[in-house]
Amino acid sequence: MFSDSKNNIKLSELLADVKSSFSLEDVKDLIEGQISAPRPLDRSTWMNLVVEEPSESLKKSLTIFEEQCRVETEKNSRGSLNLKERLTALRKQLSDQNLDGFLVPLADEHQSEFPPLKAQRLAWLTGFTGSSGLAIVLRDRAAIFVDGRYTLQVRRQVDQKLLEIRHIVNDPPATWLKRNATKKSKIGYDPWLHTVDGLNKITAQCGPAGVKFTAVEMNPIDRVWKNQPCAPLAPVFIHPVSLAGRSARDKIKSVAETLSENGATAGILTAPDSIAWLLNIRGGDLPFTPVALGFAILFSSSNVQLFMDSQKILKKTKVFLEDNAYLRQPEEFQAALQELGKTKSVVQFSFSNGPCWIMEQLQKSGVKILNVEDPCILPKACKNSVELQGMRNAHIRDGVALCKFFSWLSKNSLSGDINEASAAEVLFKFRSAGAFFRGLSFETISGFGENGAVVHYRVTPETNKKLEPGSLYLVDSGAQYSDGTTDVTRTLAIGKPSLEMEDRFTRVLKGHIAIATASFPSGTTGGQLDALARRPLWDVGLDFDHGTGHGVGSYLGVHEGPQRISKQMSNVPLRPGMVVSNEPGYYKEGAFGIRIENLEIVRFSVLQEKVFDNHQMLCFEALTLAPIDTNLINTKIMTQHEIDWLNHYHERVRKTITPLLDNGTAAWLESVTRAL
Amino acid sequence: MFSDSKNNIKLSELLADVKSSFSLEDVKDLIEGQISAPRPLDRSTWMNLVVEEPSESLKKSLTIFEEQCRVETEKNSRGSLNLKERLTALRKQLSDQNLDGFLVPLADEHQSEFPPLKAQRLAWLTGFTGSSGLAIVLRDRAAIFVDGRYTLQVRRQVDQKLLEIRHIVNDPPATWLKRNATKKSKIGYDPWLHTVDGLNKITAQCGPAGVKFTAVEMNPIDRVWKNQPCAPLAPVFIHPVSLAGRSARDKIKSVAETLSENGATAGILTAPDSIAWLLNIRGGDLPFTPVALGFAILFSSSNVQLFMDSQKILKKTKVFLEDNAYLRQPEEFQAALQELGKTKSVVQFSFSNGPCWIMEQLQKSGVKILNVEDPCILPKACKNSVELQGMRNAHIRDGVALCKFFSWLSKNSLSGDINEASAAEVLFKFRSAGAFFRGLSFETISGFGENGAVVHYRVTPETNKKLEPGSLYLVDSGAQYSDGTTDVTRTLAIGKPSLEMEDRFTRVLKGHIAIATASFPSGTTGGQLDALARRPLWDVGLDFDHGTGHGVGSYLGVHEGPQRISKQMSNVPLRPGMVVSNEPGYYKEGAFGIRIENLEIVRFSVLQEKVFDNHQMLCFEALTLAPIDTNLINTKIMTQHEIDWLNHYHERVRKTITPLLDNGTAAWLESVTRAL
Repeated sequence: MFSDSKNNIKLSELLADVKSSFSLEDVKDLIEGQISAPRPLDRSTWMNLVVEEPSESLKKSLTIFEEQCRVETEKNSRGSLNLKERLTALRKQLSDQNLDGFLVPLADEHQSEFPPLKAQRLAWLTGFTGSSGLAIVLRDRAAIFVDGRYTLQVRRQVDQKLLEIRHIVNDPPATWLKRNATKKSKIGYDPWLHTVDGLNKITAQCGPAGVKFTAVEMNPIDRVWKNQPCAPLAPVFIHPVSLAGRSARDKIKSVAETLSENGATAGILTAPDSIAWLLNIRGGDLPFTPVALGFAILFSSSNVQLFMDSQKILKKTKVFLEDNAYLRQPEEFQAALQELGKTKSVVQFSFSNGPCWIMEQLQKSGVKILNVEDPCILPKACKNSVELQGMRNAHIRDGVALCKFFSWLSKNSLSGDINEASAAEVLFKFRSAGAFFRGLSFETISGFGENGAVVHYRVTPETNKKLEPGSLYLVDSGAQYSDGTTDVTRTLAIGKPSLEMEDRFTRVLKGHIAIATASFPSGTTGGQLDALARRPLWDVGLDFDHGTGHGVGSYLGVHEGPQRISKQMSNVPLRPGMVVSNEPGYYKEGAFGIRIENLEIVRFSVLQEKVFDNHQMLCFEALTLAPIDTNLINTKIMTQHEIDWLNHYHERVRKTITPLLDNGTAAWLESVTRAL
Repeated sequence: MFSDSKNNIKLSELLADVKSSFSLEDVKDLIEGQISAPRPLDRSTWMNLVVEEPSESLKKSLTIFEEQCRVETEKNSRGSLNLKERLTALRKQLSDQNLDGFLVPLADEHQSEFPPLKAQRLAWLTGFTGSSGLAIVLRDRAAIFVDGRYTLQVRRQVDQKLLEIRHIVNDPPATWLKRNATKKSKIGYDPWLHTVDGLNKITAQCGPAGVKFTAVEMNPIDRVWKNQPCAPLAPVFIHPVSLAGRSARDKIKSVAETLSENGATAGILTAPDSIAWLLNIRGGDLPFTPVALGFAILFSSSNVQLFMDSQKILKKTKVFLEDNAYLRQPEEFQAALQELGKTKSVVQFSFSNGPCWIMEQLQKSGVKILNVEDPCILPKACKNSVELQGMRNAHIRDGVALCKFFSWLSKNSLSGDINEASAAEVLFKFRSAGAFFRGLSFETISGFGENGAVVHYRVTPETNKKLEPGSLYLVDSGAQYSDGTTDVTRTLAIGKPSLEMEDRFTRVLKGHIAIATASFPSGTTGGQLDALARRPLWDVGLDFDHGTGHGVGSYLGVHEGPQRISKQMSNVPLRPGMVVSNEPGYYKEGAFGIRIENLEIVRFSVLQEKVFDNHQMLCFEALTLAPIDTNLINTKIMTQHEIDWLNHYHERVRKTITPLLDNGTAAWLESVTRAL
């Protein structure tokens, strides 16, 4: 079965020695689950799932075994069907199931921002690897829908003889479907991969045209995708209360109370970051976000049922979880939903985030369903003082790495030896040397010149630019630390910038400062503040085409709700303890990009005066500690108030970070943070 | 029958002389309709409804006859039931109709901002005369719900032995009803007075508690309200295309096209200002807003059916209307809605503004109903160049009146002889002397000292304050001119202001200037700009508790949608041609109030540079021309940019208005508009 049978024999013996119940097949299954997850920093932690404290010899043997499995998996994933054959195989499945078409979203069961390999069905079917998209396959034609970010990439990756390429906003799926599906077409969808609201929207749009949607029992792609990765099985570990600031028991109790207030006896949790926050656990199933995939039912009685593969839960974590939750296997979830019907439950469930499959089950079970947002989202967003202190500490370490990187860059950027990819690697190296570093919080955006103007740019071998004098380098990056999550953007002049670059940079900075110094009454939403960041650009007829800020988790997702600072209005006020990015930008297509991003804590203002209606005033506290390139600033268009802010900010960066730097970097930091 | 029978005989003879078909009874009915409408500036126009060009002797006789009718009506309206008896009579009606309760909103069939006398059922029943409120009458208890503006007034006016007083936000009607109605209570409502959305909201809230709502055939208050005013019958006149800028035919055609685009074959218009705009007619049925009450059905074929009492339509107007609309009587409206069912119509109708009664009729008729906003609202809001020129001209005349008033005030404010009411009268006098003046656009807010801090203050004999040194005088007023509608607020120092007053005034001014000078990409909503007006106050922990701006009509409503500048977010972008108020304020309870309000036109910016995505940049043009009190300005907290704006604005006011002033007022204007 395996090539290195010598190690296999040894491994069997070693497992027998420690009286492990694991067969080689069991170990192999576990390794498959590791292969389906991103590769972690600590490559041996998964071995603790086999034996709690494996000996060095067992580790060595497991390492060899893992490597064999990885090679074999890699080999298997190759010999599979080409894109045309995949489409044909899918159409055969549709025909067998009497379907006229099928929706292929890029989504998993949890609407994860970065879905696991197993859920990369869109990429498998079409070759398109962007982070967002949808395909519709009909019997005789098919189309892929992507947004403006991916119009170039999709043309490179997708065979237009097989799939039409459509702009998801200008020619949306429903319109295409109405145009191309015949009346009474039966279009299949995987009820696990669509939210209730999402499906309702497409149904409402296509319903009048006679198109019918029908849930499939099993995703037809899974039937034809040979060697589809299995569900990820990264080890689930405890997020200690010393970092979480609040016990799981306490969180469960208070969230359970909100259920009671809604008149619900149970709530379904489908978001892995909500579950991670609620139960004080973390995992490694997904890239960039340290969560373990699973579902939970929270009862108003403060009981929790956690549906998560027990294979991936470390023993210590199991013991810890037992205090707070009843651990059940994923296969039991369906039965558990049916059980809710027997107790005449009133179940709250989010139509905007929860999958149709759960909705169907709840409807079958006969419970009363309340459409309520995930009750963990708001308390998760409002960090407690321990989490905020962790965020501050993480940002100091992140600031040290950033200073080392920018100092290194200042010495080498004109050498002609640095490109976007190598710069990102150096930044990673500095970051990973810091304490509590757990990985990146998203793929670094490292863009020079015109690449900096691509808002969601990711360097590839084809696009990788060398840094050269006369343009700007934009680097947007972040890390996961055990005590906090970071996300920071800086834009640097390489050589001498043009007057236009200086003007635009200064206007972006003015917008950044307008947010950073805003004081506003509680009840204010991010949407109300958004224009403050844009006004200096609006004054000269410019703008930027993305939000000004997004929420950030505490050693969780780098993007989290419910707050944001954006043109898109929402009714969610900014609340003390929330962390939000402040990242205005400016992008000149084909030329350069500018973005200045700090994370900010929302906190009570120390203003003596109170607002009219006993509203407390709120303000921001900058978390991010990294210098802003003064070579790009035109102080003539700044107010003294704005210059003062920059000088104070730079003084704070210098005083906080210098004690943690080598002399060379400290001298550099001193020089770039001098008061203007 | 009438006391002055001599005049009656003469009137009969005069009518016979001109071969009028009007009997004295007919004339009396017409006069009742005048009494039910606000008294117009021109007291004889209604006589043209009797005879197209009445002789002087006929006019004289009609005047005497009208006065007799007015005296009689006044006498009749007195001897009616007291409040306790009214409530008892209503409850008897409810019992007869097998109802457990009844909703009494302050509303008419058109959701008018200022409902006619006939619709003042809440005041008749409870004594409360505020501009907003709702009563619920159950068999054994009753409550009246008002908002924060009216908590004092309602206590003065309502007998708490008869009605509980509740805060409409803190203890809303649905909550009270759930608490006080027994299960399976049958609560009646008048389907003419509730919008579909409004009723759905209360039904959704109370439905789970078992409360049932049932539409009544006839409002039970109307059954017991003896001498209830009849429907107003103010003359309907033509709004000439020289002022409207666009023919009715052209408007009808383009709005009919939007119906087709929605897939509708007909649309129901329930808003009198929409009908007035569409058909280029004006009326006088309501206070402050020059509209004629009626309904219309617009067909995608560009046909219009207008349901309006033909008694009130001047002959010339009838001839004019014949070109554009088929005039039908209000009694025919029900049949017309049923006719729609026979032609398999698809009917668009606004659930947010349209009454339940129409919804019921449409449902009965079997048409397909589309919930679409009133299609006239957006084109009405985007004024054409003729309307904008009219608005500019009207604001010049308004500016002349304001300058005369402020000049007069500056000479007399310390005399001790001026009070809030007398000041408002003087302002009215100056305004009414201007060309094309048609009346006020709302009741003047004339508030001194602490009264200025009451945002919706209306002076009464009890509250009327004398102007004295040491505080501020706030005057918010506006007029209707045939060519435009105005709305302006100024705040003046009476004597020497305190440093606090200066600081607050300057911050309000900074907020005003921030809006006035904003440049923003098309697609931007007022909600996005709102914070710009508040930021100078937020900086010191203050705010104001009302919107920053509302839309204004063109010789129509002083408040119109869909645009606004407000914390309440909406998805409606500001568009060129819209007129919106810019009115930040600050209110110190019990001390003083500040508001600075100009109307602004939204227009394309002359900026050379274009925004990122080919969005045009927009900006504002101030319509209002009246000096801002520089005695209240602390230039130390202003930027040079802000001071420049004020100086330029004052220069523009001076140059535009001075040629139209007497020497004394011109000298005063010169002195108050000197550059800072």
